[in-house]
Amino acid sequence: MDRDRILLTPGPLTTTLRTKLAMLKDWGSWDSDFIAVTASVRQRLLDIVHGHDSHVVVPLQGSGTFSVEAAVATVVPRDGHVLVLDNGAYCKRAAKLTEMMGRRASTMAFAEDEPVSAAALEARLKAVASITHVVLIHCETGTGVANPLAEVAAVCEKHGKGLIIDAMSSFAALPIDARSMRFDALVAASGKCLEGVPGMGFVFLRRAILDACAGNSLSLAMDLHDQHAYMTKTGQWRFTPPTHVLVALSEAITQFVEEGGQPARLARYVENCRTLVDGMAGLGFKPFLKPEVQAPIIVTFHAPAHPNYEFRRFYEGAKSHGFVLYPGKLTQVETFRVGCIGAIGPNEMRQAVAAVGDTLREMGIPSGAPAL
Amino acid sequence: MDRDRILLTPGPLTTTLRTKLAMLKDWGSWDSDFIAVTASVRQRLLDIVHGHDSHVVVPLQGSGTFSVEAAVATVVPRDGHVLVLDNGAYCKRAAKLTEMMGRRASTMAFAEDEPVSAAALEARLKAVASITHVVLIHCETGTGVANPLAEVAAVCEKHGKGLIIDAMSSFAALPIDARSMRFDALVAASGKCLEGVPGMGFVFLRRAILDACAGNSLSLAMDLHDQHAYMTKTGQWRFTPPTHVLVALSEAITQFVEEGGQPARLARYVENCRTLVDGMAGLGFKPFLKPEVQAPIIVTFHAPAHPNYEFRRFYEGAKSHGFVLYPGKLTQVETFRVGCIGAIGPNEMRQAVAAVGDTLREMGIPSGAPAL
Repeated sequence: MDRDRILLTPGPLTTTLRTKLAMLKDWGSWDSDFIAVTASVRQRLLDIVHGHDSHVVVPLQGSGTFSVEAAVATVVPRDGHVLVLDNGAYCKRAAKLTEMMGRRASTMAFAEDEPVSAAALEARLKAVASITHVVLIHCETGTGVANPLAEVAAVCEKHGKGLIIDAMSSFAALPIDARSMRFDALVAASGKCLEGVPGMGFVFLRRAILDACAGNSLSLAMDLHDQHAYMTKTGQWRFTPPTHVLVALSEAITQFVEEGGQPARLARYVENCRTLVDGMAGLGFKPFLKPEVQAPIIVTFHAPAHPNYEFRRFYEGAKSHGFVLYPGKLTQVETFRVGCIGAIGPNEMRQAVAAVGDTLREMGIPSGAPAL
Repeated sequence: MDRDRILLTPGPLTTTLRTKLAMLKDWGSWDSDFIAVTASVRQRLLDIVHGHDSHVVVPLQGSGTFSVEAAVATVVPRDGHVLVLDNGAYCKRAAKLTEMMGRRASTMAFAEDEPVSAAALEARLKAVASITHVVLIHCETGTGVANPLAEVAAVCEKHGKGLIIDAMSSFAALPIDARSMRFDALVAASGKCLEGVPGMGFVFLRRAILDACAGNSLSLAMDLHDQHAYMTKTGQWRFTPPTHVLVALSEAITQFVEEGGQPARLARYVENCRTLVDGMAGLGFKPFLKPEVQAPIIVTFHAPAHPNYEFRRFYEGAKSHGFVLYPGKLTQVETFRVGCIGAIGPNEMRQAVAAVGDTLREMGIPSGAPAL
């Protein structure tokens, strides 16, 4: 089969050929041409959150999690106390990396199928004065739930707490406006809703806190203050940048702007998500989340109740029909996930539903309906 | 000008079109096809150092420096004492990142134009019993000097000290055989002498010390023990891998093997280096290092004494003729650097010398001879 499979995964995802073609050239990392690409990407990232007045953006080598760790390491002082609003696997990872680096970390647990609560956060901040920073995952990729960013940001600002946002799966799709909400750090990556290839993240840092971040990090690689200072002075990355990944991101951002920016991308993903959920419902499948808390990024479905169902066979079946699904990440309930993001539209979502239907038939499963 | 410029830089460097073409496909990081690529790359990396019996290899997202930091963070216990053999900028960086993570670090200074001394190391190890680990940069890219790896490894083994080798610029070009020398960690990266694109590193870890590495790292991202444990269990990377960078590396390794492996690559680089140094000598240029300590990786040249010389103009001139040079990294002497590595041969080196000659003429500089 010559046509590449469609990735219905939350990053790496399907990118355009135009984005990939940008990687067919080698760039000197010290050269002015490459410095110009870095500068242009940074400018256009700030455009997306309207952050030119309030924030800088610092790119970082590695996966998105590296940038989350770097944001915590850079922003939180060594005697800081971080509260992680926890409604999923990526929240738990943020708490773990905070503890590992020796910062005090607390978690506030919420149900996995519900957004975190800004009101509950406010009560906790009133009760525990030592908390200095709050970590919020904007869209928890573990389930696909959208968390109330604006409300959490308002509570943090009101109580004078720093806010670190993991916007990995939401950035460039869901609206985020630095003019109307305050955050100390916001983290995303190349291979998500900007539809670049994976290999680098980036962190928006609030200008007002930048100077105070010097010397916080215990890690040279993760020190975003140092990365920013060097980049300001030289235009270059401190250490070898993933040159091909950056030029692909630059090309992906150009297409993002051409498409109409965040509102257009959100509209496409909303249509992808609706097409997917409606089509899957026709096969009997039931989403794990209620529609009102479902972000149009990735949908968690309950596994079918039928005894013939086994994820590995289901996955291989869909793959043989041209679509790569994603496993569930819940421990209590058997699920699988289907991404709505990437360089795909409703056509691909309809084809994916058809492929899932064919796979069910081949497995002898008459309906995707779950046990519940 | 349509022909891409040749990068005479120590990574990112010029890669083959075949390597870059491997990036024209998107891969699901969870998928068995991608897991197979990861496994194949790891197997073939172990082949290169004959390390299957003694070592594992752990790939890591990010630049080579990230992998150096990860090696120190993973291998050195929190009460360890690291001695860095220092004859250049990359040695100083290794000492800095070791100190930042709270490990005790000492440096042993050597002249920048000389290899470090295994005899001096032995004397120091006898004098300072607290030293637990030695860090050696195999080829110091700051100058291009080759350090005596086998001798240093023998001293470390004799005295029961751990050895961490930064082989960033030497791996796959200079011979390294895990059967005949003992090291705890050896670090290299995708975008160097394997001629892949930048974006990931990899660390060989000695099997005998692997279990004791658990819990050493203060950083989740840098924890190679955790990365290895997860990869052993699942075949996957812990966090989103740079998928396109890995498949390009896989393709680059295939070409490395086809070329004849490390001996063939070394022979090509030796010829590149000789062609460069001889050609530049004809223009009056003088290398910073004596020939007997010069690794065939990157050559540092003294700047011409002529008053018309200015590096920025010289660089732009050579670039306009199709060749990207590299700035010097020495503080005491004015120099520039020219890489001998990448998917290039003596033809490109001759063309580079001609381009440098043309640039000198355009700048009104009759000879590249330095002041000394």
